[in-house]
Amino acid sequence: MEMPNSFGPMFENTSRTELSEIGEFGLIERLTARIQLQNSSSVKGAGDDAAVIDPQGLHQVVTTDMLVEGVHFDLAYVPLKHLGYKAIIVNLSDVYAMNAKPRQVTVSLALSSRFPVEAVEELYEGMLLACSKYEVDLVGGDTCSSRSGMIISVTAIGAAPREEIVYRSGAKEHDLLVVSGDLGGAYMGLQILEREKLVFKETGSQQDLEGNDYILERQLKPEARRDIVELLKQLEVLPTSMIDISDGLASEALHLAKSSGLGVRIFDEKIPIDPSTYNTARDFNLDPSTCALNGGEDHELLFTISQKDFDKVKGNPGLTVIGHMTDAASGCQLVDRQGGLHPLQAQGWNAFPKGA
Amino acid sequence: MEMPNSFGPMFENTSRTELSEIGEFGLIERLTARIQLQNSSSVKGAGDDAAVIDPQGLHQVVTTDMLVEGVHFDLAYVPLKHLGYKAIIVNLSDVYAMNAKPRQVTVSLALSSRFPVEAVEELYEGMLLACSKYEVDLVGGDTCSSRSGMIISVTAIGAAPREEIVYRSGAKEHDLLVVSGDLGGAYMGLQILEREKLVFKETGSQQDLEGNDYILERQLKPEARRDIVELLKQLEVLPTSMIDISDGLASEALHLAKSSGLGVRIFDEKIPIDPSTYNTARDFNLDPSTCALNGGEDHELLFTISQKDFDKVKGNPGLTVIGHMTDAASGCQLVDRQGGLHPLQAQGWNAFPKGA
Repeated sequence: MEMPNSFGPMFENTSRTELSEIGEFGLIERLTARIQLQNSSSVKGAGDDAAVIDPQGLHQVVTTDMLVEGVHFDLAYVPLKHLGYKAIIVNLSDVYAMNAKPRQVTVSLALSSRFPVEAVEELYEGMLLACSKYEVDLVGGDTCSSRSGMIISVTAIGAAPREEIVYRSGAKEHDLLVVSGDLGGAYMGLQILEREKLVFKETGSQQDLEGNDYILERQLKPEARRDIVELLKQLEVLPTSMIDISDGLASEALHLAKSSGLGVRIFDEKIPIDPSTYNTARDFNLDPSTCALNGGEDHELLFTISQKDFDKVKGNPGLTVIGHMTDAASGCQLVDRQGGLHPLQAQGWNAFPKGA
Repeated sequence: MEMPNSFGPMFENTSRTELSEIGEFGLIERLTARIQLQNSSSVKGAGDDAAVIDPQGLHQVVTTDMLVEGVHFDLAYVPLKHLGYKAIIVNLSDVYAMNAKPRQVTVSLALSSRFPVEAVEELYEGMLLACSKYEVDLVGGDTCSSRSGMIISVTAIGAAPREEIVYRSGAKEHDLLVVSGDLGGAYMGLQILEREKLVFKETGSQQDLEGNDYILERQLKPEARRDIVELLKQLEVLPTSMIDISDGLASEALHLAKSSGLGVRIFDEKIPIDPSTYNTARDFNLDPSTCALNGGEDHELLFTISQKDFDKVKGNPGLTVIGHMTDAASGCQLVDRQGGLHPLQAQGWNAFPKGA
């Protein structure tokens, strides 16, 4: 799946079949025709009142996310295939954050008549691409009409041995706080897309999006950190707590601290930021650290490990120790480059903006 | 929960707290504060990246349904508490249709700023009432804003021993076709509500909805047929195939026939119709049988049993044998009172009406 290098139509196929022509059952048949179940735990996929899963002796984890057009995505610059891919990924990321392996997803779609069958097929293509890559089965869902726009609701189900499931609440005082990958990129990608959308609106001229590949990919085609979950298993490190970074590092660190009844200290200078994220933030007159702390959608994993496991993760390029857990009384603090303490605040994405 | 006996405000609480005042996390805290997990299989509910379920050696079934304001429900006459109740019930009904026991649900909500916190709490109250009655845990979900109206996405998870799960595809030739309860009531309840909405719009006068209790309850506060699933277990009858009637008897019978590679014959005179459904249909100049065949949302169970089990279900007031399965070549037929054959056609609810 290529990154879009300019603003184009939100879907590629130029023919147009109305949803009302083929109806709900016709649409479901077309969408499910290409599904092939790949997990032996998926006993029965789409086509009955419910899907059937064989847990195979494992515990199950369940997570769900809703994406609303005009709130979570803008089809002016998000191709439908990418949207479908991302809708799956954000849910898989939550499953990995439990240290579990995703195995099934269900997808519900509400669509206005603006979308022809071909558009829905491209959305689905992106979903099935993510499913295929992460070895997950799309086992069911629901499709219906909406009065305006598109709403996507995905539920992901994963599995893990009971003793391997990692909660937000398990961190202990003095545990190290570790983050995978780098932060702020998805947010800066969004800023580029929003800026180019404005330019396009005002001048009609197509800005070339090239040269911002990394941060655009972070926004438009994020990946879930299966590799990190597998790496930790290989290193024989069981995190004491873990969370997926969807609302920004600050917000998620506060969740870990609160759930574990602790405080947390994050060192500003340790926060991993990619050079292209850094430079773009500077171009926008934004503080790169603030973007990393409060920009959402990075879908990296934030977790705590016992100090005794430090040697196992040390020097791993995909993992950065950015702080540690403290007692609750010490509060949640950001330590600046001069050693000054600043209360950590969640200024992440607000699901209910005023006047929305 | 009382049936509304007149058109009232869509929610009862008269105070108004804006969603933007308390934000997503504030809303989630308020909504989840009153949840108490009641299933030992619910290891972890809301408050982490995913809920955790212990399958306890059973297979899991998963089903999901999306309800869109203006498409599936009209808040002009559906109180939010009833809407919440129904949103859960329609999903539990799908779990029972697999002959499984529902144990967990997740709920995703998209809300425009038209809805204050108090409205969402009433919706949730109805959901929790259904959960409590059916011994199901609300273990997670998502809340976000929408540009217009309310969208509810519910996923239900149930459990059953592998060998007890009943599919649509298991019917055999000569099996008897059985339906629980009676049909067409939910559709006639909807007709009453739509008529009174028009009267209210045109004259401003409040029609009294009393006297139509049964069919209004079928529409506004449906139940899922847990009792039938339990009864069949008690009678030691394992259906060969089963489906939930949500789109109308005709549509669902066609699903059973198609999935099982068979034909089906339904006898018009056998279709169970409540007197109040019958009389209301006549008032509306509608054919009661057509309402039963094509009116949706009854959420009764349609299933097939082996002829050898006939004696076990015979005479049970909650169960009616309405036909039998034939070979595929005989097709799907409705047998009228004179013995004439009419091709069975699905004219149920269309999820994608033209021009929507």
